[in-house]
Amino acid sequence: MLLRNVFRGNIFWVSLFVVVWWCGCVQVSAQPSSPQTSDGLQVLVTYHSLSGHTAEMARNVQKGAESIPGTTVLLKTVGQVTADELFGSDAVIVGSPVYWSNMSGEVKSFFDRWQFEFGVFPEWKMRDKVGAAFATGGQVSSGKEVTMLTILAAMLGNKMIVVSDGGAFGASATTEGDSPGINDVERTNAWALGKRVAEVAGMIKRGQSFPGQP
Amino acid sequence: MLLRNVFRGNIFWVSLFVVVWWCGCVQVSAQPSSPQTSDGLQVLVTYHSLSGHTAEMARNVQKGAESIPGTTVLLKTVGQVTADELFGSDAVIVGSPVYWSNMSGEVKSFFDRWQFEFGVFPEWKMRDKVGAAFATGGQVSSGKEVTMLTILAAMLGNKMIVVSDGGAFGASATTEGDSPGINDVERTNAWALGKRVAEVAGMIKRGQSFPGQP
Amino acid sequence: MLLRNVFRGNIFWVSLFVVVWWCGCVQVSAQPSSPQTSDGLQVLVTYHSLSGHTAEMARNVQKGAESIPGTTVLLKTVGQVTADELFGSDAVIVGSPVYWSNMSGEVKSFFDRWQFEFGVFPEWKMRDKVGAAFATGGQVSSGKEVTMLTILAAMLGNKMIVVSDGGAFGASATTEGDSPGINDVERTNAWALGKRVAEVAGMIKRGQSFPGQP
Amino acid sequence: MLLRNVFRGNIFWVSLFVVVWWCGCVQVSAQPSSPQTSDGLQVLVTYHSLSGHTAEMARNVQKGAESIPGTTVLLKTVGQVTADELFGSDAVIVGSPVYWSNMSGEVKSFFDRWQFEFGVFPEWKMRDKVGAAFATGGQVSSGKEVTMLTILAAMLGNKMIVVSDGGAFGASATTEGDSPGINDVERTNAWALGKRVAEVAGMIKRGQSFPGQP
Repeated sequence: MLLRNVFRGNIFWVSLFVVVWWCGCVQVSAQPSSPQTSDGLQVLVTYHSLSGHTAEMARNVQKGAESIPGTTVLLKTVGQVTADELFGSDAVIVGSPVYWSNMSGEVKSFFDRWQFEFGVFPEWKMRDKVGAAFATGGQVSSGKEVTMLTILAAMLGNKMIVVSDGGAFGASATTEGDSPGINDVERTNAWALGKRVAEVAGMIKRGQSFPGQP
Repeated sequence: MLLRNVFRGNIFWVSLFVVVWWCGCVQVSAQPSSPQTSDGLQVLVTYHSLSGHTAEMARNVQKGAESIPGTTVLLKTVGQVTADELFGSDAVIVGSPVYWSNMSGEVKSFFDRWQFEFGVFPEWKMRDKVGAAFATGGQVSSGKEVTMLTILAAMLGNKMIVVSDGGAFGASATTEGDSPGINDVERTNAWALGKRVAEVAGMIKRGQSFPGQP
Repeated sequence: MLLRNVFRGNIFWVSLFVVVWWCGCVQVSAQPSSPQTSDGLQVLVTYHSLSGHTAEMARNVQKGAESIPGTTVLLKTVGQVTADELFGSDAVIVGSPVYWSNMSGEVKSFFDRWQFEFGVFPEWKMRDKVGAAFATGGQVSSGKEVTMLTILAAMLGNKMIVVSDGGAFGASATTEGDSPGINDVERTNAWALGKRVAEVAGMIKRGQSFPGQP
Repeated sequence: MLLRNVFRGNIFWVSLFVVVWWCGCVQVSAQPSSPQTSDGLQVLVTYHSLSGHTAEMARNVQKGAESIPGTTVLLKTVGQVTADELFGSDAVIVGSPVYWSNMSGEVKSFFDRWQFEFGVFPEWKMRDKVGAAFATGGQVSSGKEVTMLTILAAMLGNKMIVVSDGGAFGASATTEGDSPGINDVERTNAWALGKRVAEVAGMIKRGQSFPGQP
């Protein structure tokens, strides 16, 4: 009888334990956000800027990404980024001024360092990270598209997943002419790009947590 | 005492019930694949081909996508694709022969129909679908890259999520010269592109099922 | 004495004849413009336009080319151009609206007709003709560069000699937003492109008349 | 009578003088090659190369240009080129290895130096010089086209006159895979590019000597 009571008591506690254990189990596996919530989504926004225009775009890209809860943004010039910062990010957004219809030499050399200094290949260390681009240039139709597309091309060659927003190929600003510097529309476009990247990177990260069938 | 025993017994059953209830709950919410498993992942592989080379690449892209369980591929020439087929797909992979350093007029007109005939804009009906490109051309370095990059550019302008594999910008084949037609490496690259698109589209689809934080 | 006088008279006439003969000779060989002056420089300006914006740019390109004396411009939509008109031109300037980050299907199909209908290859019938591009699009940085660059890429694949003006890659207009339609700056850029093409085509044509060393 | 004879004699000498005078006049204006023959055509072939592949292509480009009589080629790595060498050339051919789907950072920085160090703008010091590109890369369809097109884009932004040969966008070599290093076809393509550039630059130079109508 005592044994039975004890057993009954045990059953009670065992049952409770099982329930609690299930809860824990289930939360771990069912709530994909829980491990990520602790880590959060890491977005690297990196750029080169002499005049400050690309830097201003970068800050608006940052704000857009940070508008997605759980997102942490690292904002750095291309020369300061380390291998750990690059490979530790879930998404990378690269910005460049237009020099002769293309990204600046500094930004191009940053991509070259991915291999020569950081050793991204042959492990494809950037694979499945989200990538995007932004650009500033003095004139309309004189290289901002090429600058953004070639940034995306470098990312595609690294097997990254590429998105745009705030413009067909990314966010851009025309810094001379009728509207010198960065205007409100351009700031909004930069913000939209940052937000979109964080959204898609979040989707990818959650999707990767469930390796089952689609 | 009896009450207490009954209570103890109830607690046992209640605990069990809670456990089982949790299991059910959790399975419903924890297995994101269950609703999608019924639907599966829909991938559209569409192309233009006069010589049959691009069609052969398309069939290998299809096989690669189908290698991911739960994936259904629709294979069609660009002229046959309907609005429902386009907008009902989770991913679209477009292939073109190179005509004068760019996609063929038929493929370009297919993209133009997205708006003029299918009305993709202003609802951004292709937003967040996965896109990729493949190309065939007679010569090396004479337009396959531009063909793939401009297919991706059209997709980016539609706010699609763009990936590559089997080459920096997608899968491609050089159909003249030393290795006429499609060789084994090129077939494998086409297969790799199809597989990658299905994998990433699966990630995105699963990720979209969990609208929580990253 | 009489003979001597006659001789003296003959010398006079012979000298005159030699002078005149030299003039003729020299004019034929020294004035490369003489055969061309009769023919003039033939520039084909061809375009596709639904809204009329690209047509308006085309007319300004035409005026710029016509500002170079001796230049005749043929202005036609891409669908109307014949093989004789294409191959009979010294320079071709192609304009397109931006549809999904690239030239319109109509313009792409025009280039495809160069081979399928006109038979430009294998004789390289467009070799050494001057080529240039112009584009119109609703948004900034959303395909005008790609449209112009891929028009130029098609021309380079035909061994044409490629130039730009009125913008890094050619003349372009943003037809929506703050400045709808074609504004004065864009008109001036189109004019500058036409003028530049006629100037360079003139240089090439005169240079070809002297097959000697550089 | 004496007067008449004297007059007749004068007419003879006057006629001879006129003939000789005409010859001189005509030779100066009719032989456009004479000032250039003394100077010759200056072609700059400049490149970046780590593995030596791009350097080998450069030497074949050089030989092709030198096959046109009267052409002098300066062969230098991009880091060694001075402003005088750049601005003193009639044509510039730039070669780059493909790093991440684009020209190398060294080559991009060379273009940036055109402005920051050499001051090419606002005088458009490269205007009407002939430009062309060549590239080497490990894989097919993974950046050689983009590398050549963006080199040409930088040149177009400088109002240069752009040509290709040995491939749609210039000469290129695939240095890994079935045919490692530079093979005979690729060497021939490089040679063809050099020859074409010297030919077109010669046309332009001769054409510029005759500032008349086309």
